[in-house]
Amino acid sequence: MTDKSPVLETTSEAIALATSLIRSAHHGVIATLEPETGRPLATRVGLATDADGAPTILVSALAAHTPALRADPRCSLLVGEPGRGDPLAHPRLTLHCDAREIERGSSEEARIAGRYLAHNPKAALYSGLGDFRYFRLEPVRASLNAGFGRAYALAGTDVLG
Amino acid sequence: MTDKSPVLETTSEAIALATSLIRSAHHGVIATLEPETGRPLATRVGLATDADGAPTILVSALAAHTPALRADPRCSLLVGEPGRGDPLAHPRLTLHCDAREIERGSSEEARIAGRYLAHNPKAALYSGLGDFRYFRLEPVRASLNAGFGRAYALAGTDVLG
Repeated sequence: MTDKSPVLETTSEAIALATSLIRSAHHGVIATLEPETGRPLATRVGLATDADGAPTILVSALAAHTPALRADPRCSLLVGEPGRGDPLAHPRLTLHCDAREIERGSSEEARIAGRYLAHNPKAALYSGLGDFRYFRLEPVRASLNAGFGRAYALAGTDVLG
Repeated sequence: MTDKSPVLETTSEAIALATSLIRSAHHGVIATLEPETGRPLATRVGLATDADGAPTILVSALAAHTPALRADPRCSLLVGEPGRGDPLAHPRLTLHCDAREIERGSSEEARIAGRYLAHNPKAALYSGLGDFRYFRLEPVRASLNAGFGRAYALAGTDVLG
């Protein structure tokens, strides 16, 4: 490790913080690739988790991130909300994922929808609309910023289970 | 406009909401392109505005977004925090920008830093550190989501001035 590489060794506390940030989140910001331009696109999504801790999202085909994820499943998700004081002093997690669309009417969708609506009851207002679909975000790797000078690089498997 | 294109005609109220979301924000999430992989990267940044309303950020060279912006200035910024109830019912703005690094010691930096630290006083703790730099995010275009079914496409110039 050099002065230019401020990443700390992964600890069980860092993994516990990362999984807690994911499991407690009701929304996050997803970065996708805009198909027409290749530009990065930041949009808000509603969030829950599948049984193994992978994030799940419920998105409309009319929202920009949905065609983006269908064209290129690579995305990253930021979770962890600032509280009082400097917003950069609060923990947040960037989770790199590959998105996978869940088939309508599948048993996998039933499981994911049940968990999603238990976590976000108000989403029942639109979850059944024809243009809404669930995606599972398969974690690839993650970067945890636990506050100034406290950065950790995690494996995708660190945040599952 | 068809059923598949739910974007409403731009109104002065939509522009006022967009500029208010930018000017009142103390932080946002920026989407950049990871240089090594081309993957989209979502990270939190502290925010203020320049005199014309363009967003400004103060970032560390040790944070992933800084080398990303230096390699490719294309980015998008999400502002607008959820309040109570469904997080997707609250207004938010995706602002597509081209980032421009501000020269250390320039009069432009003095102006931008003065405004930034007036908006975010706690950032004075680290703004003078050697690895921190200001960037101006030059607006290209924006997408305003004012709540379900209320989407607007704005020009970059709509959110300046």
